[in-house]
Amino acid sequence: MKSDLRNFFYERLNELERLEGILNLLGWDQQVYMPSAGSGSRARQIELLSTLIHERQTDPAFLACVEELFREADPAEAAHFTNVREIRRSLQRESKLPKEFVAERSRLHALSYAAWVEAKPHSDFAAMEPHLTKIMELARQEADLVGYEEHPYDALLDVYEPYATLAQVKPLLLEIAETLARMIGGCEPSSTRRSSSPSVGESDQAKLCARLAADVGYDFDRGRLDKSPHPFQSTIGSGDVRMTTRYDEGDYLSAVFTVLHETGHALYEQGFLEQHRGTPMGSAISLGVHESQSRLWENLVGRSKPFSTYLYRVMGEYLPEAQRCITPDDLWRESNRVMPSLIRVEADEVTYSLHVVIRLLLEEALISGELNVRDLPTAWDDLYEKYLGIRATHLRDGVLQDVHWYTGLVGYFPTYALGNVYGAIMMERIRHAIPDLDTQIERGGFSPLLRWLREHVHEHGRRYTATELLTKIAGQPPTAKPFLDYLRVKLSQNES
Amino acid sequence: MKSDLRNFFYERLNELERLEGILNLLGWDQQVYMPSAGSGSRARQIELLSTLIHERQTDPAFLACVEELFREADPAEAAHFTNVREIRRSLQRESKLPKEFVAERSRLHALSYAAWVEAKPHSDFAAMEPHLTKIMELARQEADLVGYEEHPYDALLDVYEPYATLAQVKPLLLEIAETLARMIGGCEPSSTRRSSSPSVGESDQAKLCARLAADVGYDFDRGRLDKSPHPFQSTIGSGDVRMTTRYDEGDYLSAVFTVLHETGHALYEQGFLEQHRGTPMGSAISLGVHESQSRLWENLVGRSKPFSTYLYRVMGEYLPEAQRCITPDDLWRESNRVMPSLIRVEADEVTYSLHVVIRLLLEEALISGELNVRDLPTAWDDLYEKYLGIRATHLRDGVLQDVHWYTGLVGYFPTYALGNVYGAIMMERIRHAIPDLDTQIERGGFSPLLRWLREHVHEHGRRYTATELLTKIAGQPPTAKPFLDYLRVKLSQNES
Repeated sequence: MKSDLRNFFYERLNELERLEGILNLLGWDQQVYMPSAGSGSRARQIELLSTLIHERQTDPAFLACVEELFREADPAEAAHFTNVREIRRSLQRESKLPKEFVAERSRLHALSYAAWVEAKPHSDFAAMEPHLTKIMELARQEADLVGYEEHPYDALLDVYEPYATLAQVKPLLLEIAETLARMIGGCEPSSTRRSSSPSVGESDQAKLCARLAADVGYDFDRGRLDKSPHPFQSTIGSGDVRMTTRYDEGDYLSAVFTVLHETGHALYEQGFLEQHRGTPMGSAISLGVHESQSRLWENLVGRSKPFSTYLYRVMGEYLPEAQRCITPDDLWRESNRVMPSLIRVEADEVTYSLHVVIRLLLEEALISGELNVRDLPTAWDDLYEKYLGIRATHLRDGVLQDVHWYTGLVGYFPTYALGNVYGAIMMERIRHAIPDLDTQIERGGFSPLLRWLREHVHEHGRRYTATELLTKIAGQPPTAKPFLDYLRVKLSQNES
Repeated sequence: MKSDLRNFFYERLNELERLEGILNLLGWDQQVYMPSAGSGSRARQIELLSTLIHERQTDPAFLACVEELFREADPAEAAHFTNVREIRRSLQRESKLPKEFVAERSRLHALSYAAWVEAKPHSDFAAMEPHLTKIMELARQEADLVGYEEHPYDALLDVYEPYATLAQVKPLLLEIAETLARMIGGCEPSSTRRSSSPSVGESDQAKLCARLAADVGYDFDRGRLDKSPHPFQSTIGSGDVRMTTRYDEGDYLSAVFTVLHETGHALYEQGFLEQHRGTPMGSAISLGVHESQSRLWENLVGRSKPFSTYLYRVMGEYLPEAQRCITPDDLWRESNRVMPSLIRVEADEVTYSLHVVIRLLLEEALISGELNVRDLPTAWDDLYEKYLGIRATHLRDGVLQDVHWYTGLVGYFPTYALGNVYGAIMMERIRHAIPDLDTQIERGGFSPLLRWLREHVHEHGRRYTATELLTKIAGQPPTAKPFLDYLRVKLSQNES
């Protein structure tokens, strides 16, 4: 009987994993290869598959099984205990949301997204105001339905960063914001991109990027790299972890860092243990921890001096002409240009977290009711002026720039900055564990670093919460210090 | 009540269409882009989706609905009547097969396919004998379960060529075989490929092929052309009809004719009326009719003199160096080399049907019990000697060459030859309807021809059976004469 319940539980998880893999393939193909006229039927295929997944997640027999397993779960049996605990946690949330609420939310988000696609190019915030007002209302309603201890925002944040709270995250990010704003005081704001680099064809860039991904440890037998307008990483199945990038012929470093970023995500997904596939023990802890992996490879490794030396050498094989125009030191400087700017996704490593903090402060105020949606554009611009010393002249470069809020993702942004914090904490410990890390990186030897991440992060799946994992790694709960120390050193090198 | 039933029927068809489109995407991706290590989870995804489809097809409520709709269907309401009639026909077949039988059949076919992949390179028929014996036993059993009027083979053929019977198909194909065997009496048998042509890179070939597909009417906004080891056409959804080819750098004509072939299939799929999508009125009649479309474009158009003139001109834009080595007449001769050979998929237009007839005769004998699987290799070689004057020295080039039987496809082969017969009948009528067809083709004007096919074939979906459609087109039931007349003219031109 007991083993029957377990079988039912793991078979259902297995079925859900397969359906989610299929759903991810539908999404991957949509963004990478689907012909334009396929969008109508693709939307209907995705809708159907999402329904099938939802039915299986909310099936009363499954819910009862999970409750029963939870009652008798033994914490000493760590993997099974984790699986039951985590599945129960997400099911409990789902079960508190009435079906009609979920349906209305989906409809609203789809409508709002379509409106945003139209409104953004025209900086037409007035068109979005009613949508965003309704989205924030529903978000507050969702928080009330789900429940929270201190702040309604906690209930929203929890979807993306389980177990985290505003009381924990906000002071951390505010400390970063205040410190960074002071640090970059002397930098010239700019709305332009990196200085011009020689034009490099897409296929040469693609070859270089594939080589870099393979060198750092991405397994191409278990994945692939394609092109899409918005870069992303997607897990289609066990042994099938894909990523995409875009290419800018005038700026090959853009693809290099995008691919390092997506490779970081993919290495996490390729690093789960095979026996835990499709269960919480074979899944990511949180978006923050996922982002720690992407940013660690993109920034802490990719924008370091030893990596520039390695990259310069590899460039000689793939982009010999572009290489001849520069020195390894130029490459490092190009990778580390700091310029306060308006657009989050184009921001440098130092100013990036400021963009995130601004969004967190605005989200909090919108959810608590201190800020009206009508006043959001001005509040946005004021915070950009305060932290980055720059105001948007068009709302498309201001409050309308990111899709997140307009498609209902409220509480998502902080995970980007948490990734920076977590990654820096890990890197401090990695430098202790691998004293010759820089020499290794310079030589293109990334396997000790990857092994460390596999052992200390990837292979644990969701056994620990993000805070527990970081505490286990660093001996104390996460602080901003490692990240700020790292940036201080980088800025001082940059000035020298 | 009546309209409730109708809604249920069409909603179920719509759901099935979406699930089948997703299944096709899983298969397309598997053959085109999936990384090698993804095969395990892909197989499990395909298995799950096939189960979901099967459950929806065999759901008693759906079966009852179809029976009820069939009782009250009005033939004057042609589209609805066709939809109910055709769905009922395939459901009735399915309902006669016990669940255990279907499961055993699937297992056997999967095992046998895996064994064939191993056995073929070693010409190891002994390894396949037990599998094939069991497959033929199950096929006979299936025929008995499903029922038939004259010959058990009819029940198998019906899956691929609905409403056709051995009594109808065999005399047609035998007449072709006897006539062709006499016609090619003077040709030198060969086991080698076409004479060497200049080496042409894959990307140039791909550009030429895409241009040809677009010129004949394939809509790239509603599809795409990719590369795969075995070329195929796949319909992922409304507005998403894809095809693949392979490239041989030493033989660019191989890709040209492969793409014309797959384009023929794709034009049929792109030609169904939008309002009938996902219903029998928006689906192909049979594999024979599908093949008539691919072979019409590949052979009757693609290997004609006016097409060679057009192709030669277009080659000047994409393969200028290869073009300089030849004349339009050389191109036509290269496209029409007739050589009895061992491998079906490499056969020329004239000898191709002989390969098919041999397989039909063997299938019939295996199913009726006149031939034992043990004696199959010799029977195979004897028929090749009789019709093509050539014997295989390795069984991998003989009885082991095609996957069909070894994965349970019995009754499939005749559709390849029926496609030739149907296509030639259509072409005779097309030449009456479009007297200046050759001039049009020479100029690259394919739209009158495509319009004729849309109107007389594609847009009818499954309203008519293949025989009814061809009778409607030609004024009499299908005969071999148009196909044989066409080949006679071609052979006489080839000799001149």
